[in-house]
Amino acid sequence: MSKNLTKRAEDYSKWYNELVVKADLAENSAVRGCMVIKPYGYAIWEKMQAALDKMFKETGHENAYFPLFVPKSLFEAEEKNAEGFAKECAVVTHYRLQNDPDNEGKLRVDPEAKLEEELVVRPTSEAIIWNTYKGWIQSYRDLPLLINQWANVVRWEMRTRLFLRTAEFLWQEGHTAHATKAEAVAEAKQMQDVYATFAESFMAMPVIKGVKSDSERFAGAEDTYTIEALMQDGKALQAGTSHFLGQNFAKAFDVKYTSKEGKQEHVWATSWGVSTRLIGGLIMTHSDDKGLVLPPKLAPIQVVIVPIYKNKEQLDAITIKANLITDALRSKGVSVKYDQRDTFRPGAKFAEYELKGVPVRIALGSRDLENNTLEVARRDTFKKETIAMDDVISYVEKLLKNIQENLFDKAIQYRKEHTTEVNDFKEFKKALKNKGGFISAYWDGTEETENRIKEYTKATIRCIPNNAENTPGVCVLTGKPSAKRVLFAKAY
Amino acid sequence: MSKNLTKRAEDYSKWYNELVVKADLAENSAVRGCMVIKPYGYAIWEKMQAALDKMFKETGHENAYFPLFVPKSLFEAEEKNAEGFAKECAVVTHYRLQNDPDNEGKLRVDPEAKLEEELVVRPTSEAIIWNTYKGWIQSYRDLPLLINQWANVVRWEMRTRLFLRTAEFLWQEGHTAHATKAEAVAEAKQMQDVYATFAESFMAMPVIKGVKSDSERFAGAEDTYTIEALMQDGKALQAGTSHFLGQNFAKAFDVKYTSKEGKQEHVWATSWGVSTRLIGGLIMTHSDDKGLVLPPKLAPIQVVIVPIYKNKEQLDAITIKANLITDALRSKGVSVKYDQRDTFRPGAKFAEYELKGVPVRIALGSRDLENNTLEVARRDTFKKETIAMDDVISYVEKLLKNIQENLFDKAIQYRKEHTTEVNDFKEFKKALKNKGGFISAYWDGTEETENRIKEYTKATIRCIPNNAENTPGVCVLTGKPSAKRVLFAKAY
Repeated sequence: MSKNLTKRAEDYSKWYNELVVKADLAENSAVRGCMVIKPYGYAIWEKMQAALDKMFKETGHENAYFPLFVPKSLFEAEEKNAEGFAKECAVVTHYRLQNDPDNEGKLRVDPEAKLEEELVVRPTSEAIIWNTYKGWIQSYRDLPLLINQWANVVRWEMRTRLFLRTAEFLWQEGHTAHATKAEAVAEAKQMQDVYATFAESFMAMPVIKGVKSDSERFAGAEDTYTIEALMQDGKALQAGTSHFLGQNFAKAFDVKYTSKEGKQEHVWATSWGVSTRLIGGLIMTHSDDKGLVLPPKLAPIQVVIVPIYKNKEQLDAITIKANLITDALRSKGVSVKYDQRDTFRPGAKFAEYELKGVPVRIALGSRDLENNTLEVARRDTFKKETIAMDDVISYVEKLLKNIQENLFDKAIQYRKEHTTEVNDFKEFKKALKNKGGFISAYWDGTEETENRIKEYTKATIRCIPNNAENTPGVCVLTGKPSAKRVLFAKAY
Repeated sequence: MSKNLTKRAEDYSKWYNELVVKADLAENSAVRGCMVIKPYGYAIWEKMQAALDKMFKETGHENAYFPLFVPKSLFEAEEKNAEGFAKECAVVTHYRLQNDPDNEGKLRVDPEAKLEEELVVRPTSEAIIWNTYKGWIQSYRDLPLLINQWANVVRWEMRTRLFLRTAEFLWQEGHTAHATKAEAVAEAKQMQDVYATFAESFMAMPVIKGVKSDSERFAGAEDTYTIEALMQDGKALQAGTSHFLGQNFAKAFDVKYTSKEGKQEHVWATSWGVSTRLIGGLIMTHSDDKGLVLPPKLAPIQVVIVPIYKNKEQLDAITIKANLITDALRSKGVSVKYDQRDTFRPGAKFAEYELKGVPVRIALGSRDLENNTLEVARRDTFKKETIAMDDVISYVEKLLKNIQENLFDKAIQYRKEHTTEVNDFKEFKKALKNKGGFISAYWDGTEETENRIKEYTKATIRCIPNNAENTPGVCVLTGKPSAKRVLFAKAY
């Protein structure tokens, strides 16, 4: 268990990889760069999906499903988007296998079954969706069109890491069409807000809302709105993006509507997505050297009850009480597991649930039954308290809220301590080297300067924060004038 | 709207295709054989998923996610399964596109980016999953392993139809591992029961539970348990299957466990799945010449309220009342839409909701406000009733239950009238020709006879029903002895 887990201070990256596997979240598969999401990891994804899906529907979106494959001729229609993804596309070229005549019992691709047009496995779905929208949009009455899709996508990345960067991943992608530019911009910003609310309220992961610089923008977008989180190793994680696509796709796929005034106009578009990458962010925001730490709102198991007993008689008495507590907590919407396996000792169970990040652990022994008490331990601080049995429900409810808040506060505090305002490039490099994190600095707005800073330091512009003050200064590298500070960091 | 819908009696197949598109359920895409599932169709799928997922979890299963791609060498490991699916596999051979030097602005597959080993887009996931299970199963303590996956799969079918047979479709696939044969058989049968319960309780679609003959069995299975439904045109639809896989995959992927006694044994397996095909079955079981008819338990909108008004003042008064009714119904878990669009007249709205199969329609006019009444129309029978406003909640709740039951009863009645016991081949052909449906007949148990009957009549053995009586007879074609009757039908 956690005894074998590498310490974060020793090797953060190794700690992460080990933790994902040991906590039964995911593992590498036989397919290069593709992961298997194990039941415990998938249960976190299901909780994320449920919360996000509700927020999407509350903001007027409906779900739909579009094909996995994009014919090459559609894929290349929006040139910038195509260029941005061309290098990482898995391509289907054939539709049949046959017995290999040279190799008994083996199959080979049937050379006769070559597709006339190759199919790209979607790396993102703008092309196939906008080709479809062409048939759905005629009049201003058809707008806005507010659609989301839950799907798998494939980007053939060369260097992959479980959850953070995998060749196939699960995500949602919203694709909306609007009559005016203002509406589309408002939609893109609204979804950035939705993502920020989700990250902070559910994941307890504070994020900076901002806009991307030209070089970090989504291929085919006019503006990319992002939420950026800070991991415990001082590196930033782009956690979600929402794109204002202008009329680029509407023009590439000739999607027009007739306005109230009877004029033909191209529509305005957005797209926005978050993925299973969020699980990587969740892990790296809160977890520790003992294992996962999960915020209660996304924990598949919020409370585990472990019986402490010497014989079957004791266990039976404890079980009666444990079942009562379980039922009472469940009736309050708390997810509870009562672990009465006789193949593991309590100490081993404690270590297992620490590793798996269960927020609250209740230990229930024979002496507790006599005293009408139980011991409650919280995962985030390891604090234990013995409380009266009768108080357990309200105590646990309060504790879960408290853990959720504490995790967010800790993460905010960490970010505060790891955000540095610098005014020259020496300070920039020093801050980045000494503690990492976000570096708030003036930048002259050119891609050249951005690239040079990246070259010297490996830090990139994470975003121009929405709330950046309009106080002019001079660029940290070139000394040229700059309108406002931007946020730099090394990033995942 | 429905005025343009082909009548079922004229051309059932055309009626189906038109209805799927006109009711906004799905449409064909730019990708051969792949469909776009539109929001209204996807909302039905979400309701199906929610109900099934709950039933899977209540029977102890957890969700997980496995890669979309299967390396060819794994795909071919279980020979029968590989042989069964080889002819319909989409194959990824390359992982990059590049600018086409002969064609500016176009892309081509990068010939340098050929995969060393081709990747099959999963037509089903036994191979990749069993290769993974090898690492998860060591001891009897790891069993049973009860996992389900919600995913997309691809089978390159030559003749496709929306929902019923598409190159890509959405489904769930359960994959379980057990210590004993008896446990695995019990699991496969349990999931057949789960599917039957879902079909009958939620879809209001009666099904026959049975086992497949050798020729209709899943490639790689020892036994395939099926649920078979009867459509309104007298053709059968295989609605869900659950397979006892024996030790075939365990042997192909060398998955063994150490028993309590310390012996190494191969594990026993099942797999089971239902897909978006169910939506096709749902449509063809209940719908009519006016459009969709949806059972309340799966209807995205259960009740629609349409205001009948002459001016804004009337509309405002109606809206106040409609909102009260909406809130009251929603608080009871009923999904309600209040349609106050001013771009359509009531008659057009009525036709639209008939087409879309909304079970209950409430019309609310100014005179209703005066009389404290409203008009309730049910979609299944078109009956209308004027009821007292104060009774609306309990009336609607009862009506929804009643519609759900009525649809099931009608479908059972239809099946009863279209199931014919025959004792010779003349009767067989006559019954099939005159009314179609299920033909219950003695069969000598040989594949040869099965094939000849198929050749003569296009009917296949849908299943050997679980509840078939063990009363011996003689084969309807050959006169050879037969242990029991089996069910024949033409099938989708």
